Amino acid sequence: MIEWIAAYWQQLQAEPGRHPVMSQVVPGQVREALAAAGVAGAVPEQGRPFAEVFEATAGAIMPGITHWQAPGFFAFFPANASPPAVLGELMSAGLGVNGMLWATSPACTELEQQVLDQLGELCGLPEKFLFGEGGAGGVGEAGGASAKGGAVIQGTASEAAVVAMVAARKRASERTPGARPVVYCSSQAHSSIVKAAMICGIASGPEDHAAVRQIEVDASRAMRTDLLERAMAEDAAAGRVPCMVTATLGTTSSLAFDDLPAVAAAAGRHGAWVHVDSAMAGAATVCPEYRWMLRGLELADSYCFNPHKWLLVNFDCDCLYVADRAAITSALSITPEYLKNAASAAGAVVDYRDWQVPLGRRFRALKLHFVLQTYGAEGLRAYIREHVRLGGVFADLVRADTRFELVDHSRRMNLVCFRPSPRPGETPAQTDVRAKGLLDAVNRGGAAYLTHTVIPFVTPGDASVRTVLRMSIGSTFTQERHVREAWAEIGRRLGDI
Amino acid sequence: MIEWIAAYWQQLQAEPGRHPVMSQVVPGQVREALAAAGVAGAVPEQGRPFAEVFEATAGAIMPGITHWQAPGFFAFFPANASPPAVLGELMSAGLGVNGMLWATSPACTELEQQVLDQLGELCGLPEKFLFGEGGAGGVGEAGGASAKGGAVIQGTASEAAVVAMVAARKRASERTPGARPVVYCSSQAHSSIVKAAMICGIASGPEDHAAVRQIEVDASRAMRTDLLERAMAEDAAAGRVPCMVTATLGTTSSLAFDDLPAVAAAAGRHGAWVHVDSAMAGAATVCPEYRWMLRGLELADSYCFNPHKWLLVNFDCDCLYVADRAAITSALSITPEYLKNAASAAGAVVDYRDWQVPLGRRFRALKLHFVLQTYGAEGLRAYIREHVRLGGVFADLVRADTRFELVDHSRRMNLVCFRPSPRPGETPAQTDVRAKGLLDAVNRGGAAYLTHTVIPFVTPGDASVRTVLRMSIGSTFTQERHVREAWAEIGRRLGDI
Repeated sequence: MIEWIAAYWQQLQAEPGRHPVMSQVVPGQVREALAAAGVAGAVPEQGRPFAEVFEATAGAIMPGITHWQAPGFFAFFPANASPPAVLGELMSAGLGVNGMLWATSPACTELEQQVLDQLGELCGLPEKFLFGEGGAGGVGEAGGASAKGGAVIQGTASEAAVVAMVAARKRASERTPGARPVVYCSSQAHSSIVKAAMICGIASGPEDHAAVRQIEVDASRAMRTDLLERAMAEDAAAGRVPCMVTATLGTTSSLAFDDLPAVAAAAGRHGAWVHVDSAMAGAATVCPEYRWMLRGLELADSYCFNPHKWLLVNFDCDCLYVADRAAITSALSITPEYLKNAASAAGAVVDYRDWQVPLGRRFRALKLHFVLQTYGAEGLRAYIREHVRLGGVFADLVRADTRFELVDHSRRMNLVCFRPSPRPGETPAQTDVRAKGLLDAVNRGGAAYLTHTVIPFVTPGDASVRTVLRMSIGSTFTQERHVREAWAEIGRRLGDI
Repeated sequence: MIEWIAAYWQQLQAEPGRHPVMSQVVPGQVREALAAAGVAGAVPEQGRPFAEVFEATAGAIMPGITHWQAPGFFAFFPANASPPAVLGELMSAGLGVNGMLWATSPACTELEQQVLDQLGELCGLPEKFLFGEGGAGGVGEAGGASAKGGAVIQGTASEAAVVAMVAARKRASERTPGARPVVYCSSQAHSSIVKAAMICGIASGPEDHAAVRQIEVDASRAMRTDLLERAMAEDAAAGRVPCMVTATLGTTSSLAFDDLPAVAAAAGRHGAWVHVDSAMAGAATVCPEYRWMLRGLELADSYCFNPHKWLLVNFDCDCLYVADRAAITSALSITPEYLKNAASAAGAVVDYRDWQVPLGRRFRALKLHFVLQTYGAEGLRAYIREHVRLGGVFADLVRADTRFELVDHSRRMNLVCFRPSPRPGETPAQTDVRAKGLLDAVNRGGAAYLTHTVIPFVTPGDASVRTVLRMSIGSTFTQERHVREAWAEIGRRLGDI
């Protein structure tokens, strides 16, 4: 299997065309291939040799794989893997421990505390989010005044948002019992914020705009803090309680950055929890030159970013840092008898089950630990800097070609938004249709895979939303030639539509 | 790494004593060992060779591992792994795809649909929980009247409970807008039900007994349906809405089974969602002789069990079956622009992001698929039957020894509850203390690891809760000699306390 993975990764790099980046199958096609390969239908009565099952399955599914690890994968957001991360995942599966409590595998908890502190220091996070010497050594919930901050690995930023929101709601309900909680984010925030509000019962559905205030953005697509202030004041005056504000550092759509100091100051005036979502861009703070995005973070209550997006750790690995871990654990803790044990009762340890939605948990710290140790700080910085450099290369290519328009970014990094230039006499809607047509043509070609979004302020002064293409650079194997080839392919396909 | 895992699994079986089953470290010890091994402190500037990092890390953490895969692991619940499952996890990490949408890797979704249908058929689940021919081939949310049931892999039963509760609440709020929802389970149900209610905002905390009615149990530790009926009637009369009833098939504490037909009938009278949690025991339904537990399941709205507990699939893999998938997806669906695509818009496919809390997801179907195909139905049945047989062996040993009392089970399987017999003149509390002392002595010995619980009706007629030890048999490598050795060890340690 290791050899098969190594060969697959090699093919992705050395044999362009062998694996179309976006799967070209139609619905049901994989099912048919599995049946044809003899691995469908009822579970066989007698087991079959693994090698036979594996070969049949791999043959059937590979055409149905969209290759997130391909160097031509520029869609959505990166999901990069690396050898040490995959080996860490394998070791975790082989050990097969459940780290729900410190006692159920102390190493699972203690390595996680260590690696999150190390990563936090590497990224220059405020000290209040770290366990520090005492906490990391094992001081738990009963650790007294010193037991404040800490961090935990979640599966995804969505789960981190749920955890933060549950804690925020508890704090709000203690401050203003009975009042209806309201959460805030920008119109460009990730859908997981609205989804978290639906799961938590704060919002009745995706359109419950009274419960989730999606604040309009300015020309940089950052949350308008004047409107945030106004919304919170209105809610407070009406007897509702401003519960949580999510600031996004690097939106999924277009890598916009909210003004964290201003957002946090506004939230602070209403006692609202400040959650900061930097799912992809946060990885860049391993480089000092990107720490500008963390300005104001010392005012936040929670912060998360995903090493599984852009820091060489395979999915899933979201790191959630909290300033007051008791706020999380008091909102999520239940202790049935069969989980009681001496170490937990003594308050001497951290029990991560109280930091997350599920009870059980995998030993995810291993893969993060292996990545930090084998790449080292310099290796990680070089990795980030190269992708940002490639973002610049691509932006220059767009800028130099009058057939295309570059969407202005105040803070360009590894995501470049662009679209075909409007033709004379073309309506905006017609340009949008052409942008999507171009996208489909490129993706069907199989050499590169990009996705689209709609955002405001594509043209200076125009706040109506327009369709743009997103060139998201962050795959482990992406090199300059892949970026240039993708650009050439985009140019070629433009002629077809 | 593969060789290291193989050697580790071999050591667990062939070298008892090399790895104490319950880790014997004290808080902070792993951190110190990591520091001594040179893999602590700041992230190194230069990366280091993987082999060096791995060796240092493995040496430091192994004493801090509680060995869930050891044949002497009889604590909590099983978390069994197997070679095909670990290889499936590895393949998933190597492919590194995110199956949030059908389009983001069609094979991830289609194999998951297939394997869940296969498993459902193997376990004799009601047809309404399966995709069936049409659905499995790709008919999605817009598939019309035929788009009813289906299944999804969740991380854990806790997450399945959250998903079911979110859907149940939506249904209840549509039926009785504005009424306060109430959820029901037995006093023996898993803590994840209360936790789900806290996350969903239905319960204000673990002690919010008005929101989560924990119904008392009968002498078999099954939910008293007369009390359930009464509680629901009271709530409905008071203007609250009975929202969801969770029936447990095999409680974590003592493997008690709720009377599902009676629970479902009571719930049905109030229109409440019926969720069925059979996290561990559900695996046994691969054998026809254990399908009695599924009686009444055709009346349920959702059902889950965890192949990661007792069906050879490494953590995490919970299978959630729902009768009406639109009830789930309508409660969890949000579609931002960057996730829109032709296949989803056509309703031709299943997009699993709308079936779960997170957006992203791993390709977990692979490990389940590999296990089903390589063990085959006969291999899986033999595995379950052997563990149940060993449960019988252990129960017989307890029964034959007057120093111990066997806790009566109406349905004995692989979990045996027992305790030291009360000594003449000993108070119940004193017996409880002695039971915990015995447990600590056994666990410190390192040859076996058991955990305790407190349950009512340990002695016929006595509904006060008493401490008992749990012998939970389900590790992949456990053989009869390990069970007999554990029993001998328990007998020896009883003399010490």
